[in-house]
Amino acid sequence: MAIDKSPRRPKAEPPKGFRDYFGAEVTERKAMLDKIAEVYTRYGFDPLETSAVETVEALGKFLPDVDRPNAGVFGWQDEDADWLALRYDLTAPLARVAAQYRNDLPSPYRRYAMGPVWRNEKPGPGRFRQFYQCDADTVGSASVAADAEICAMLADALEAVGIDRGDYVIKVNNRKVLNGVIEAVVAANLSSPDGPPAHYEDMGEWEASILRTIDKFDKVGEKGVRALLGKGRLDESGAFIEGIGLSEAQIEPVISFLTSKGDDIATTLENLRNAVGSSEIGFSGVNELEQIASLLAAQGYGPDRIVIDPSVVRGLGYYTGPVFEAELTFEILDEKGRKRQFGSVAGGGRYDDLVKRFTGQSVPATGVSIGVDRLLAALKAKGRSTADTAGPVVITVMDRDRMADYMGMASDLRTAGIRAEVYLGNPKNFGNQLKYADKRQSPIAVIQGGNEAATQTVILKDLILGAKIAQSATLEEWKDRPAQVEIPRADFVDQVRKMLAQ
Amino acid sequence: MAIDKSPRRPKAEPPKGFRDYFGAEVTERKAMLDKIAEVYTRYGFDPLETSAVETVEALGKFLPDVDRPNAGVFGWQDEDADWLALRYDLTAPLARVAAQYRNDLPSPYRRYAMGPVWRNEKPGPGRFRQFYQCDADTVGSASVAADAEICAMLADALEAVGIDRGDYVIKVNNRKVLNGVIEAVVAANLSSPDGPPAHYEDMGEWEASILRTIDKFDKVGEKGVRALLGKGRLDESGAFIEGIGLSEAQIEPVISFLTSKGDDIATTLENLRNAVGSSEIGFSGVNELEQIASLLAAQGYGPDRIVIDPSVVRGLGYYTGPVFEAELTFEILDEKGRKRQFGSVAGGGRYDDLVKRFTGQSVPATGVSIGVDRLLAALKAKGRSTADTAGPVVITVMDRDRMADYMGMASDLRTAGIRAEVYLGNPKNFGNQLKYADKRQSPIAVIQGGNEAATQTVILKDLILGAKIAQSATLEEWKDRPAQVEIPRADFVDQVRKMLAQ
Repeated sequence: MAIDKSPRRPKAEPPKGFRDYFGAEVTERKAMLDKIAEVYTRYGFDPLETSAVETVEALGKFLPDVDRPNAGVFGWQDEDADWLALRYDLTAPLARVAAQYRNDLPSPYRRYAMGPVWRNEKPGPGRFRQFYQCDADTVGSASVAADAEICAMLADALEAVGIDRGDYVIKVNNRKVLNGVIEAVVAANLSSPDGPPAHYEDMGEWEASILRTIDKFDKVGEKGVRALLGKGRLDESGAFIEGIGLSEAQIEPVISFLTSKGDDIATTLENLRNAVGSSEIGFSGVNELEQIASLLAAQGYGPDRIVIDPSVVRGLGYYTGPVFEAELTFEILDEKGRKRQFGSVAGGGRYDDLVKRFTGQSVPATGVSIGVDRLLAALKAKGRSTADTAGPVVITVMDRDRMADYMGMASDLRTAGIRAEVYLGNPKNFGNQLKYADKRQSPIAVIQGGNEAATQTVILKDLILGAKIAQSATLEEWKDRPAQVEIPRADFVDQVRKMLAQ
Repeated sequence: MAIDKSPRRPKAEPPKGFRDYFGAEVTERKAMLDKIAEVYTRYGFDPLETSAVETVEALGKFLPDVDRPNAGVFGWQDEDADWLALRYDLTAPLARVAAQYRNDLPSPYRRYAMGPVWRNEKPGPGRFRQFYQCDADTVGSASVAADAEICAMLADALEAVGIDRGDYVIKVNNRKVLNGVIEAVVAANLSSPDGPPAHYEDMGEWEASILRTIDKFDKVGEKGVRALLGKGRLDESGAFIEGIGLSEAQIEPVISFLTSKGDDIATTLENLRNAVGSSEIGFSGVNELEQIASLLAAQGYGPDRIVIDPSVVRGLGYYTGPVFEAELTFEILDEKGRKRQFGSVAGGGRYDDLVKRFTGQSVPATGVSIGVDRLLAALKAKGRSTADTAGPVVITVMDRDRMADYMGMASDLRTAGIRAEVYLGNPKNFGNQLKYADKRQSPIAVIQGGNEAATQTVILKDLILGAKIAQSATLEEWKDRPAQVEIPRADFVDQVRKMLAQ
């Protein structure tokens, strides 16, 4: 029965699209989130931690259908027949909490949330099905002061984690201005001899097609947008993309909107007012941008940090008022070695009706979400990961019977606040112990054999120096600094401290 | 069509057995875990964060059966037919990681992990289906020094979070000693005239029944255990519980084991040696306990903190070597107002074959898990929750047009490191603003109306003092401390700082 002896073993791997985080990967993210939380707290935001699991009903958006109940989310049917799912973002749980505790929470309610979310999507390189989000939202304030506050807080948070002023810019736009532009487009058509076209009956779809075109501004530029709004254009592959069919007069407000950024805020605002024509909502949107800029300027957040930028179109379809995007402006090399701007690390905006699904009542909200992995990557690119990830001092074991002595040394170091550990593998092969210390990125190995024990001394081996010497062609530059010293056991903690400070 | 106007709304609540954590609940847990992580780090342990989702195959233990694939865990079938599940503890993912990365990880591998786990169990009062665990394990060391280190680290962690020395004790026992006791039970029978009973053919079940009886020692005491090991006993309800049927001679080693705790470690060890008779494994278990005690004593962890205690039987069935349990010894009042010891807050021990399921190779491991919610409750009971949960200074809004001024005040306070926020609700009703400040547990409300603005002053309202005055029958004791002061805007930050320091 040889077959019985080797039963099929489970595969030692996480599910596809999931990964593990080791050591510094954990502490660096934590250090960054701690600094952000400090800023959020100083702004009066309180932490909220909801559970990973929600009812599909409360999550909304992804309702289970019969064929693929799990599309987009990880969901399952509970034993009592409720459909449950892992949260796919931190906003849906906030909506549920804001509705559930609406009588108990302060209003406005400022909250921040940090934690993993899950997406049941095809994983790809660098795209995981569990990842961190870090959100701050103000629920229950219709004031643009709340939007301005989020922008200022985002700037502070970026600087707190180590992004220098000048290396980032927070761009602000407003969905209402875009609505004004759409109204101007409609007005331009109504005033034309042809009157409104038939597709105005489906305003929603027509508007959405304009939005989608505006979203392509980054890619295809002014000329491309003009063509797509009008008669269409040939794309790079030579295929003809049908246009929306707007007239020249209708296209004008959209282009003025997209290109309205001037040399200073006053010029930009002036251009925007021209773009929205006589639209009331458009005007109120421009006024909101003006207020946000002036509230921020009064606190010292000038255009070196926060700018009105109508070319920010990402998210305009989702949000209902001001939208924000934080971009890092320094250059990095992409995978092909070409220079490019680092780009966006955070985005947000104002969204109405946060809790309306639950209560029927409209509650305004505004907030921001920081892309945790993107920002971490930026800090790494800038050499600004500040978490202390030093390896421990490793006490080697020369004599199995004197384990108590070795553990006493580790204990003495720890009491002095120094990270330390005794080698706990099989001590027979000393080479293995040094290999272990190397793998642990240990700065110092401590050695005490029988001779040293007899003379009450220990040997400190400087592993960082040792590694440098190994790399270097000449020992010359290290000759004044011995890679190994023998010192009295009584001076041991002080000596280790000195060596670590070098 | 009135019905269409009120569609069924989703319920604003989390799934049964799940809950939300607000403000201080989040920060207090975080502060506690941060302190524990600091101790673990000092001992050379590295953080590991695995994903919440594992394949059911890798999790093991809970294999899906046809009728109830989710029993015990939250599981679902992925689109590519793999069964996935939320982790139910932090040890199963560690086993998977230790197997997957066995060639890359240092060996021994010391790791800690903190995070939520999920259990698909019936929720009850205070029993949730998502809760935190906080584990530290050493994988790949067979040395009892690793067990001793875990005990010392646990003591340090408890003290670091605010449990005073004297308020806790870490009890150590050893599964091997129990195995020795079982061998002594068998030996006692073999030497009896009757010879071994038939049920020895099913050693596993027979042993398990002895283990289960030993587990009842806390409840039924020595007399009860004697009866249950022998002929049986009447329980409180009058029902007769069948005994295992051991002879007096067989029962003796079990009772000596359970009652072997002496006045000092030497006596306890002596009693244990007697209990295991001539069992080799029993002897080696007692020797291990002796080594652990002496390693710990050499580092100053004496019996005031860590004791050998054979009455610790919880977990003996699961572990394979030393087991540990941290008990808090101070008294609290239970829900009926009776005094009782706070009890256990952490437990662990040595378990072999951590990764054997995956690799076929035996790897020894030892570790501890801290009950996060229990320890938090203990800190609360002791008044030792140290997270800073102060509410923000609230800047009220008297004049909507001077929002920039109010935001400037908040900004000045934040720059000075003081938590502050501007009231961002509708400012019309000033009473609502003070109610808001109250709900935010704000220490100070800042007021600047038109008069104050004209004279460049602000009013600081001491809300903590105000609350005290409201509670107190007489104003006498507060007469020297005004609840409200008007001060120059220029001195504002200094004055707030002084008031907060009071």
